[in-house]
Amino acid sequence: MKIETVDFFYLAMPEITTAADGSQDALVVRVAAGGHVGWGECEAAPLPSIAAFVCPMSHGACQPVRNSVLGQRLDGQQDIIRIAAQIEYDSMDLLQATHTWSGIEMALWDLLGKARGEPVWKLLGYDRSCRKTPYASQLFGDTPQETLERGRRSRADGFRAVKFGWGPIGRGALNVDVDHLVAAREGLGADGILLVDVGQIFGEDVERASERLPALEAARATWLEEPFAASAYSEYAALAARSTVKMAGGEGAHNFHMARNLIDFGGIGYVQIDCGRIGGIGPAKRVADHARAKGVTYVNHTFTSNLALSASLQPYAGVAEATLCEFPVALQPLAVELTANHIERDGNGEITAPEAPGLGVEIDQAALDRYRVDIEISVGGRTLFSSRAGGDPGKAGMTAMDVAS
Amino acid sequence: MKIETVDFFYLAMPEITTAADGSQDALVVRVAAGGHVGWGECEAAPLPSIAAFVCPMSHGACQPVRNSVLGQRLDGQQDIIRIAAQIEYDSMDLLQATHTWSGIEMALWDLLGKARGEPVWKLLGYDRSCRKTPYASQLFGDTPQETLERGRRSRADGFRAVKFGWGPIGRGALNVDVDHLVAAREGLGADGILLVDVGQIFGEDVERASERLPALEAARATWLEEPFAASAYSEYAALAARSTVKMAGGEGAHNFHMARNLIDFGGIGYVQIDCGRIGGIGPAKRVADHARAKGVTYVNHTFTSNLALSASLQPYAGVAEATLCEFPVALQPLAVELTANHIERDGNGEITAPEAPGLGVEIDQAALDRYRVDIEISVGGRTLFSSRAGGDPGKAGMTAMDVAS
Repeated sequence: MKIETVDFFYLAMPEITTAADGSQDALVVRVAAGGHVGWGECEAAPLPSIAAFVCPMSHGACQPVRNSVLGQRLDGQQDIIRIAAQIEYDSMDLLQATHTWSGIEMALWDLLGKARGEPVWKLLGYDRSCRKTPYASQLFGDTPQETLERGRRSRADGFRAVKFGWGPIGRGALNVDVDHLVAAREGLGADGILLVDVGQIFGEDVERASERLPALEAARATWLEEPFAASAYSEYAALAARSTVKMAGGEGAHNFHMARNLIDFGGIGYVQIDCGRIGGIGPAKRVADHARAKGVTYVNHTFTSNLALSASLQPYAGVAEATLCEFPVALQPLAVELTANHIERDGNGEITAPEAPGLGVEIDQAALDRYRVDIEISVGGRTLFSSRAGGDPGKAGMTAMDVAS
Repeated sequence: MKIETVDFFYLAMPEITTAADGSQDALVVRVAAGGHVGWGECEAAPLPSIAAFVCPMSHGACQPVRNSVLGQRLDGQQDIIRIAAQIEYDSMDLLQATHTWSGIEMALWDLLGKARGEPVWKLLGYDRSCRKTPYASQLFGDTPQETLERGRRSRADGFRAVKFGWGPIGRGALNVDVDHLVAAREGLGADGILLVDVGQIFGEDVERASERLPALEAARATWLEEPFAASAYSEYAALAARSTVKMAGGEGAHNFHMARNLIDFGGIGYVQIDCGRIGGIGPAKRVADHARAKGVTYVNHTFTSNLALSASLQPYAGVAEATLCEFPVALQPLAVELTANHIERDGNGEITAPEAPGLGVEIDQAALDRYRVDIEISVGGRTLFSSRAGGDPGKAGMTAMDVAS
C-alpha cells in the first residue's frame, strides 16, 4: 500500500475554558492507503500541529512532517517504524513534529490492523488483551467537601480506583492540601485505590513537594503524579527517595528516550504514556517493554476521546501485571460524540482494549462536522491548508496534498 | 513598562535546500514596551512557531504563548523569569511554545538592556565580556579532498578552530569517515583545533559510533558533537566512557532541565546551547552556571544571524575559561543582511559579545522587507495572523493583538 492522503480535523467546543480538561478540543487524523482508512488523534494544540505538517521546509533537518509521510510505502509495521525514524531525523529541529506525527502514527496502526483483520495489540505481539481496572480521572473539588463527594460519586458509579488531579493542590497552604487528601480517602472508603495528580505544580521545589508526603502516605495514595516539570529527573529521584508513595509521570515525554530517562534517572514507579504525544503506539510499546524490564508499571495517559483511549491501551494490552488504566469520566460532548462506539466497563467494572480490527473504534462522521473549526493557512500567497471544502463531510479536513501539490 | 506588541517576521531565501544550513530562513521577533524596542530570533520553524503564539486555547495547560506575554509588566529581569515560568505552566502541553518564546525572551533582554543603557551580559551579572576563539562552523566536504581544502581555507581565513559537521559522516562505510577525519586534520595543520559534529547520525547505536573513536582520537578532535538523539543520555554516557575525545551536545535542549540532564547523566564535556530554542537567554545562563559547577565547558550553538550570535554569547560572556564559540562562516545573504552591524574578529582572530546596550546588534529594516514571507492564518473565520500590512516596513510582521483583539 501507499499512503495517499493525510487529513486533519480540528474540532472544538463552542466555549473553551482554562480548566485542565483536554477534551475541549481535538485534532483527529484520517489516513488513506490501499483502499483502507485509519484514524488517529493528536493530544496536541491543533493549529501548531497542522502547521507542522504543512509548513515550508526551513532546512534539511527542519522539514514538515508531510515530507516524510505522503507517498510512503505501508506494507507492514516496519514501515511505520521506518517513517518514524525519518521524521525524527528530517524534522529534528521542528519541535511540534512529534505531536503531529503521534496522531498519524496511530492512524497507520489502525489502518494496518483493519487491512489485516487484526486488533493492533495483536500486531504488537500480544496474544490477548488483558482486563484493566479503569480509574475515574477527574479534578479535585474546589473544597475538600466537594472532593469527598466526587470520591463517593465515583465509588457509587462503580469505580474502585479514582484519580484526583490539579485544582487547588499545591497552590496554597499545606493544610488545604492535607484536607483534600483526607477527604479524598474518606470519599473512596478504605478499599478504594487513590491516585493523586498535581500537574507539575511544584516545578522543581522538592521541599514543598516533600511537605505533602506525610498526608499522601496517611491517605494511602498509590502514586503521586507529576510533582515536577517533565524533565526534572533529579527532583523526581530526590522525592522518590524520601517517599513510600511511588512517583508517577511520563505524559510529557515526546519520544521514547524521555520516558526511558524518567524511569532510569527519575526513580518513578509508574510510567504514564500518552500515545497522542510520544510519537504514537510504536514508541509507547518500547516504553512498556523497558518498564517491564525495570520493574516499573506502565499506565496509559488519556484525557480525550475513546479513539485515543483505545490507542493508549494497545501498547500494554497484553501486560497482565499492569492492571490500572486511565479512563476519563467527564469528557466534553465532542469527545463522547466523536466515536460511534465506546469502550464500556464489563460486569466487574473492568475494560479491555477492543477485539475488533485496528483500534476497534468507529468515527462518527456527523460529529466531525458538528464540532469542526475552519482553518486556512497561506504562506507566500499559496494556500497550504484549508478546511473549507464544501458540503462533503468526508472532505471536511484537507491537507497540503489536496490543496497545494 | 508594559509589553505592548510582539511582532513576527518570517524571512526566507527564494530557494530552500535540504542542506543542514539553518540560515536559509529566519523567524525574527520585535517587542515594544515603554517606548523601547527589542529584537530576538527563534531558531525554529517559522509557521508552527507563529501558530503557537496565536492559536486558540485548547485548555488551561495548553494556552497560546501570547496569553502569557501581551500586556505583562516588564520592569526588570525578574519579570522575564516570571513570564517564562507562566509559559512553562500555561503552555505545558503546547510543545512548540518554547521555540516561540525563545525569540521573544531574547527581545525582552535586548529591550531591557537598551532601556537601562547596559549590555545584556552585564544584566546577567558579568562584569566583562571575555574574548572567545570563534570556530568556523561548516559542513564536511562531499569528498575527503574537499574537506581538506575547506580546512585549509578556514586556516587561511584566520580561524584557528574549525568545526566540520554533517555531510557524509556516519552515512556509509567506516573508511570514508576515517578519510574525512584524516583530511580534516591535515587541512587544519597540527596546531588547529578540530571539532566534529555528526548531527545525531548514529541515533542510539553506540557500537557504530564507537568504531569512529580511534580515528577521532588519531585526528585529535577536541569533541564529538551529537553522536546520538538529543535525549539518548545513556548512549552519550556509554560512548563517553569509552572515549578520550569528549562528547558535546545540547542544542536540542528546549528547557534548562534537558541540558542539565545531558550534563548530569550524559557525561558530556561540552554543553552547546541555542538561545533560540532553550527558552532564551535566562535558561541558557542557568545552564552556564550548572556547567561551571560540574566542570563542563559551555559553548554557544548558533547557525543563523549575528542577532542570534550576540544572544548566544551573553549567557557565558563573562566565563573566562570557556574560550570557544561557534561562528557561522557561510551564512545565507538573508542572515548576513538582517543585521546592520556584525560581530567581527579582532586582530587576534577573537570575538566578544558587544559592549553596546542590549544585544548590541541593529536590525536592517530593509532586509526584513526584502526577504519577507507573507503569512495569513485564520481560524473559525477570524484572522489570527496576517503579515500583509501594506507598505510600512515597520508593520511587516503583525500579531494577533494588531489584527484580532
